[in-house]
Amino acid sequence: MTTKRIGVLTGGGDCPGLNPVLVGVVRKSIGLDYEVVGILKGWLGMIENVTTPLTRDKVSGILPRGGTILRTSRTNPYKDPEHIKKVKANFKAMGLDALIAVGGDDTLSVAYRLYEEEGLPTIGVPKTIDNDLSGTDRTFGFDTAINIATEAIDRLHTTAESHNRVLVIELMGRHAGWITLYAGLAGGADVILIPEVEVSIEEVCRIISERHGRGRDFSIVAVSEGANLGEGTVLQTDKVDDFGHVRLGGIGERLSKEIEQRTGFETRFVVLGHLQRGGTPSAYDRYLGLRFGMTAVELVEQGKFGTMVSLRGNDFVPTPLKDAVSLTSTVDPKLYERMKVFFG
Amino acid sequence: MTTKRIGVLTGGGDCPGLNPVLVGVVRKSIGLDYEVVGILKGWLGMIENVTTPLTRDKVSGILPRGGTILRTSRTNPYKDPEHIKKVKANFKAMGLDALIAVGGDDTLSVAYRLYEEEGLPTIGVPKTIDNDLSGTDRTFGFDTAINIATEAIDRLHTTAESHNRVLVIELMGRHAGWITLYAGLAGGADVILIPEVEVSIEEVCRIISERHGRGRDFSIVAVSEGANLGEGTVLQTDKVDDFGHVRLGGIGERLSKEIEQRTGFETRFVVLGHLQRGGTPSAYDRYLGLRFGMTAVELVEQGKFGTMVSLRGNDFVPTPLKDAVSLTSTVDPKLYERMKVFFG
Amino acid sequence: MTTKRIGVLTGGGDCPGLNPVLVGVVRKSIGLDYEVVGILKGWLGMIENVTTPLTRDKVSGILPRGGTILRTSRTNPYKDPEHIKKVKANFKAMGLDALIAVGGDDTLSVAYRLYEEEGLPTIGVPKTIDNDLSGTDRTFGFDTAINIATEAIDRLHTTAESHNRVLVIELMGRHAGWITLYAGLAGGADVILIPEVEVSIEEVCRIISERHGRGRDFSIVAVSEGANLGEGTVLQTDKVDDFGHVRLGGIGERLSKEIEQRTGFETRFVVLGHLQRGGTPSAYDRYLGLRFGMTAVELVEQGKFGTMVSLRGNDFVPTPLKDAVSLTSTVDPKLYERMKVFFG
Amino acid sequence: MTTKRIGVLTGGGDCPGLNPVLVGVVRKSIGLDYEVVGILKGWLGMIENVTTPLTRDKVSGILPRGGTILRTSRTNPYKDPEHIKKVKANFKAMGLDALIAVGGDDTLSVAYRLYEEEGLPTIGVPKTIDNDLSGTDRTFGFDTAINIATEAIDRLHTTAESHNRVLVIELMGRHAGWITLYAGLAGGADVILIPEVEVSIEEVCRIISERHGRGRDFSIVAVSEGANLGEGTVLQTDKVDDFGHVRLGGIGERLSKEIEQRTGFETRFVVLGHLQRGGTPSAYDRYLGLRFGMTAVELVEQGKFGTMVSLRGNDFVPTPLKDAVSLTSTVDPKLYERMKVFFG
Repeated sequence: MTTKRIGVLTGGGDCPGLNPVLVGVVRKSIGLDYEVVGILKGWLGMIENVTTPLTRDKVSGILPRGGTILRTSRTNPYKDPEHIKKVKANFKAMGLDALIAVGGDDTLSVAYRLYEEEGLPTIGVPKTIDNDLSGTDRTFGFDTAINIATEAIDRLHTTAESHNRVLVIELMGRHAGWITLYAGLAGGADVILIPEVEVSIEEVCRIISERHGRGRDFSIVAVSEGANLGEGTVLQTDKVDDFGHVRLGGIGERLSKEIEQRTGFETRFVVLGHLQRGGTPSAYDRYLGLRFGMTAVELVEQGKFGTMVSLRGNDFVPTPLKDAVSLTSTVDPKLYERMKVFFG
Repeated sequence: MTTKRIGVLTGGGDCPGLNPVLVGVVRKSIGLDYEVVGILKGWLGMIENVTTPLTRDKVSGILPRGGTILRTSRTNPYKDPEHIKKVKANFKAMGLDALIAVGGDDTLSVAYRLYEEEGLPTIGVPKTIDNDLSGTDRTFGFDTAINIATEAIDRLHTTAESHNRVLVIELMGRHAGWITLYAGLAGGADVILIPEVEVSIEEVCRIISERHGRGRDFSIVAVSEGANLGEGTVLQTDKVDDFGHVRLGGIGERLSKEIEQRTGFETRFVVLGHLQRGGTPSAYDRYLGLRFGMTAVELVEQGKFGTMVSLRGNDFVPTPLKDAVSLTSTVDPKLYERMKVFFG
Repeated sequence: MTTKRIGVLTGGGDCPGLNPVLVGVVRKSIGLDYEVVGILKGWLGMIENVTTPLTRDKVSGILPRGGTILRTSRTNPYKDPEHIKKVKANFKAMGLDALIAVGGDDTLSVAYRLYEEEGLPTIGVPKTIDNDLSGTDRTFGFDTAINIATEAIDRLHTTAESHNRVLVIELMGRHAGWITLYAGLAGGADVILIPEVEVSIEEVCRIISERHGRGRDFSIVAVSEGANLGEGTVLQTDKVDDFGHVRLGGIGERLSKEIEQRTGFETRFVVLGHLQRGGTPSAYDRYLGLRFGMTAVELVEQGKFGTMVSLRGNDFVPTPLKDAVSLTSTVDPKLYERMKVFFG
Repeated sequence: MTTKRIGVLTGGGDCPGLNPVLVGVVRKSIGLDYEVVGILKGWLGMIENVTTPLTRDKVSGILPRGGTILRTSRTNPYKDPEHIKKVKANFKAMGLDALIAVGGDDTLSVAYRLYEEEGLPTIGVPKTIDNDLSGTDRTFGFDTAINIATEAIDRLHTTAESHNRVLVIELMGRHAGWITLYAGLAGGADVILIPEVEVSIEEVCRIISERHGRGRDFSIVAVSEGANLGEGTVLQTDKVDDFGHVRLGGIGERLSKEIEQRTGFETRFVVLGHLQRGGTPSAYDRYLGLRFGMTAVELVEQGKFGTMVSLRGNDFVPTPLKDAVSLTSTVDPKLYERMKVFFG
């Protein structure tokens, strides 16, 4: 066994579980007598050579903390050929034997190209709060996000009921509706709207009205930020000014106004936004993070570069980065269709 | 001891602790061998005579639930003389010996006028999530609201730090800044903006920039929905259209854009909104609710009509409704000034 | 499509997610135009014919509630042949076309034998907070349990650190250490002890002492109630009375005393006990419950009796009850071995 | 204004809110241009002169964390005259102008004697999770404790109901029943037992049996660790061995066994223990901590030594340490009597 020097960076948006990944990387490395170099602010740190040694002490006590002690950025070195040169030079200057990149599609694509085109020994750890990576059964951050969103829906329920109101909650998900589907079901939402399936505003109002007709005079609507109400639908409440522009609020706000106008039921909305990304990770996300991090180091040990850690059933296995970055996982419309028994 | 028949209603906005008040009213009444009539949807139920008996079984298990099992409304019978007549007629028709009104300024004003002008034996229980009633040290709902808001700020902190961002959180409070002050301090906000004290946008940006200058390159701003940035201030990011209208978002959104433009720091915002009003009450709010409810019945027993239950230190005592409804409690600018040591 | 009448019962220990299962069963049944009969108190209700119709209204609002609205019991009809006769007679009397049994090993064994030996059309839904069923990747209740346990460990951490103490937390798991392993890792425990792997008290104390030797003068020990310290180990602090009996406390208490005596570090313990079983289910457990419940009805529709719903990856599929009840899933000692990098 | 050098220490048991007090002390001091010396491990740090400078950076981000970054101990220098000499010498050696002692009865008694007997300029900040100090309306830590205890009772409720069980929860409070009274009421406990009022085991069982007789076949009993079942009561389930010794478990365990034996209802118990002391402070406890800490520095500024900060209504005012340490606040039996309407 030779000792190794491993670099690790976290890129892209905040996600509960990043610190546990770092704990996993460091603790497994100590077990193998490897050294770990923390690269700050994602790929930016590789370009600018800004690092900090990650020791046992450095990662002590960070498990319950949201965010990432390495900071993050959305810098993509492939936007500038000079940056790629610097990444390669700094990889050498840092004396690295391997680089673990923790991030989403963007971050992992860079890791893949560095491996494929530049021959750098990279390993990926998938991070997407939206759970929309096809290469793995689950990603960390998702469980925390659905817990926060479900708790929010629980809170809104009591207000909706006391006031006989419709409450619309806008959740994350531009292209994939997983958070909205899971949290919407778990929170008992009466209508769930996701990007993958077009549902008309008429249909939404019909479900709510039928429900009220059964004497349940309050409703909850869970809607993804990227929900599909039909391409080019102009709602009655969209204001068109003299120049023909439609003045848009977010989908939550627009939907709320439209439901109120069409059904006559008092309607309010909440946009959960960044609250879904921060704070202490759930137990499962911490576990996933630890396991993803330690497995990444095991893949380094085994020389399985160009791969990403992925969860299959209860096992953590390598998947080629190539596959991982090319396929996103979205909600199957058939699954959505089956879940409609919970609407209304 | 003669048995009595007490009516109780909940009016105005949702507030954690309403169900505990009902438990307090019912349990104390059972102890005194009184009957309790639950009046549905606030004053609307008095106008339309819609009631439900409140028994021990009816209030069993409702302590942890947000909202109010009696539902609520913002109906004010004083807007129509016919409604007042109906209230009086229904008070008689229901066979009531007393009426306990649980609500905010509006609801209690009606209770006061019914007592003063119509001679109805009413008792008030103060409810204001904003904690802005001067007649009592605290009101239920406030503790839950600041816990939710503080937890939200905690979550935002980790994201702000990981991304080196400014995060603006808009909290409840049109006229009183208590929620924002308490939650802002508890959450470690770097700037706190409330309705009671004017703070210029320049000052806000100065505090943030100085903080970043000290190497703390992220900040949290807690802002009341009614915060005062100076009358008539037009922010650089307010858009003025051809007709001269300023297109306003909420204060959180406007502030966020303006901070980003002026400081150059990436800035995001969250509006907590209805999440502050719903869901299970905190332990203290349940305790307050129970005590307020039981004390209201004791005041009925003692014939102290025209009063409201209030908390003084650790004691629950009557205050004339007259005083309670006329004075709101806002944050003393001197207190705000002293809290500035926590800014930045 | 013919309409059907489905019975459903919940048996065995309390587990977060039971009510969501009932929602899943009822909502899917309504979609298929089936009727649902709720059988009270597990198999006892089948013996005594105590039922309640489960309608849409009956299951409205129960998603966030712990426990089971059908109540539960540990009654096993196979302990008395008369009881089996009654179960069969009542199945007929209730006019059932199928029976869904939600429960653990015991409950499902009865369902299996009723199917195999008596020809009753039964379907199982696995319920084990310990996650120790081999037929499925996960069971509901487990996620909630590890969240509660992890939050408890988080709380103990701050006290351990402030006081320089060792804190022992005893978690559920007589035969399987899943809860302790997951929560121990997620909570950052320094020693994790489970039933599947023998660890000597000397080893436990060595890990703690080494950690303190590195200047980390506090530790957390997570221990399953069935943890294996070596068969017949008599700890120094076990008291032996004149009759030779060892007076046992629980493992948490014994371990705590022994660590204090051997290491000299002040040590305290907490037994989490029933707190792990109750209360509102996590988002994921609600989702699992809903999916398990609805899938059970789909299996009824497809006539796949004698099977149990199980989760494989992200799919819900049938498994023969026969297999499910015969195999328990315990922590692989090799997995435990690999997790030791997180100790100390 | 002259600059000053202030020492601060935290003593006694862990309590949520200690870190906010330190933030309050440091931030207010910075505002006044004072320096703050953090003394480690309570009075032990004064005896051994172990300190750390408390700067703005040192207290950054500690608001949401339980415990105390200064660590704590139960060392009392008055047990050894040499220690008092060292405290005085170190006070001088550290160059202190004032010493703020944060702690309970014990810690504050030392602060009082140092002021009275040795002329040291001390200020106290009261810390008692039990809320049993008469000199102040509330102390920090209590609100967090009752939230944790209430959430635990909520969890037990669902299990009690699903299994038709009695569940006993043992809460903190050797001499004062505040936590048990508040959390018991907030959690809807059916029997509440505190140290201040003797209640016989017969009475406890009578309440439970009557409740079951009304068809509510589950119960929750909240009991303080120091609850009074009658001096010298030997329960039927207490085992008396040949030497006449009664083998005691804790009150929760003993009560649980006794209730089961006397009523025939299945009964279980949970001891919440250290979980009530640790973890992130509630919003209100953070606010109280900040205000207590900043007020302590204001008292230093005003030279009001020998006093303790106390909360009266919503004001933070000085109280002589002399009074504070001599009087404990316990639950008035009359208050307890009135709360009995919530039993059963």
